[in-house]
Amino acid sequence: MIQKLAVIGLGLIGGSLARALRAAGHVGHISGFDADPAQREAALRLGVIDTAAGSAEAAVTGADLVVLSVPVLRTAEAMRAVLPGLQPGTVVTDVGSTKQSVLADVAAACGGAVPGWFVAGHPIAGTEKSGVAYSFAELFRGHRVILTPHAQQDADAKARVTALWQACGARVVEMGAAQHDAIFAATSHLPHLLAYSFVDMLDRLDQQHQIFPNAGGGFRDFTRIASSSPRMWHDIVRANKVSVGELLAKQIDELRQLQDLIAGERWDEVYALFERARAARERYLAQIE
Amino acid sequence: MIQKLAVIGLGLIGGSLARALRAAGHVGHISGFDADPAQREAALRLGVIDTAAGSAEAAVTGADLVVLSVPVLRTAEAMRAVLPGLQPGTVVTDVGSTKQSVLADVAAACGGAVPGWFVAGHPIAGTEKSGVAYSFAELFRGHRVILTPHAQQDADAKARVTALWQACGARVVEMGAAQHDAIFAATSHLPHLLAYSFVDMLDRLDQQHQIFPNAGGGFRDFTRIASSSPRMWHDIVRANKVSVGELLAKQIDELRQLQDLIAGERWDEVYALFERARAARERYLAQIE
Repeated sequence: MIQKLAVIGLGLIGGSLARALRAAGHVGHISGFDADPAQREAALRLGVIDTAAGSAEAAVTGADLVVLSVPVLRTAEAMRAVLPGLQPGTVVTDVGSTKQSVLADVAAACGGAVPGWFVAGHPIAGTEKSGVAYSFAELFRGHRVILTPHAQQDADAKARVTALWQACGARVVEMGAAQHDAIFAATSHLPHLLAYSFVDMLDRLDQQHQIFPNAGGGFRDFTRIASSSPRMWHDIVRANKVSVGELLAKQIDELRQLQDLIAGERWDEVYALFERARAARERYLAQIE
Repeated sequence: MIQKLAVIGLGLIGGSLARALRAAGHVGHISGFDADPAQREAALRLGVIDTAAGSAEAAVTGADLVVLSVPVLRTAEAMRAVLPGLQPGTVVTDVGSTKQSVLADVAAACGGAVPGWFVAGHPIAGTEKSGVAYSFAELFRGHRVILTPHAQQDADAKARVTALWQACGARVVEMGAAQHDAIFAATSHLPHLLAYSFVDMLDRLDQQHQIFPNAGGGFRDFTRIASSSPRMWHDIVRANKVSVGELLAKQIDELRQLQDLIAGERWDEVYALFERARAARERYLAQIE
């Protein structure tokens, strides 16, 4: 049970977390801050938070748990802003999609080392929508949350963040930050790059406005993630640029090989590639269901 | 109203078309044939067809409307198989995703020219599932069907196929076959290649089985089309290899440029690309809704 939760960054994730904890009866009071006054006011109006603070520091005053739910490159700034308002024993966690950059930025904001009371987390949940207006209490239900404990990690802080996510219906797993970043470069960051690049290319090809009106359901789902927040994804790609860059290079090589198969009319190999991919995806679906 | 409909190829599309026409009261009797006895028996058991014929020729006997719903590279074979059973006045149409290859294959099967009674069609609807067991009557409701009339097109035949699709709740539009193939290479064929290639690459990277278990909803939607029928998509890519090859080359160029932006830390341009893509997709959504 959290007496006072402070949410710094009132978007889809921060708003949904507030709603989920309230629905679970896991929180007393929720204060929130967002640099954008419109998000702050919307969060208050929608009942997502109880009080809208005028600053990040004011929001965390008296809080026993603080969630930083800002674009990952704003982590250091958010941590510096809340630091003066934290009381002894307060646990701070985040929801960022890159964990090495977050730990480095928190260390930088805290004088060189990550404090024991900071717990790095990443809920594997979201939609392509941005903003507190799209938040909903069930977002994390049945989803994974990855925690990436660090060398100075306080066990009690980790247990409290674990309990927080479990109250939202999520399943908490742990891994190293480097492993996390390599895995999510593959499952999440690269597909976002591919989807953005594909839609941008089509838009430039579509000078006569004949392409998009003829797109069907396959296109809609394939490109859904290209409607995601450009700010958030700019930050993620930038924060994880090494892993993402390596995977993008691999993907380009793969596509060149496919191009060679098509140009060389090596149709059996094209068929075999499609068949392997379908089998792999069916195995994946069997794992997650 | 169709007295007797013959469906050659009892998969997702053929089965759904039969169901939709029956639900609309637009058809008297439905006979079906599939080279796979299991699909034939399933179609009969599910009530999708009234009679399962022992051959394509037998299925079309007495039919006033014949639908070829086979993988596109089997069009010529299917047309040759039904030809001896067709009666004067019977209209034949297809549902293939490539239209130049279908028209060429029909011409080849019919002695060099496309007959006036053949109507080339392409419903812009489907799912990643294969087989008659996944067919449903509402598949085409609110979707587009493209007809690509040819030089010898009989107007009455086109009107009957238009009425057939309208009875299924679809909206019929016309365009040239070459234009059709260029547009669908962009909106449909290329994304399938990208999705198959991406999943195949990840599968080979995932030697420790840590990648797929950490995939979330974005991954699931982005890769949904990689669960599509490898046979169907092999045929489509092969039948439309020139348009598809050109677009794949363009996409690789785009990704190389994005790679350069990331390597060069040109983050404002990365952000601008994401922003353009999101805006383009939002415009597309506004068009289709």
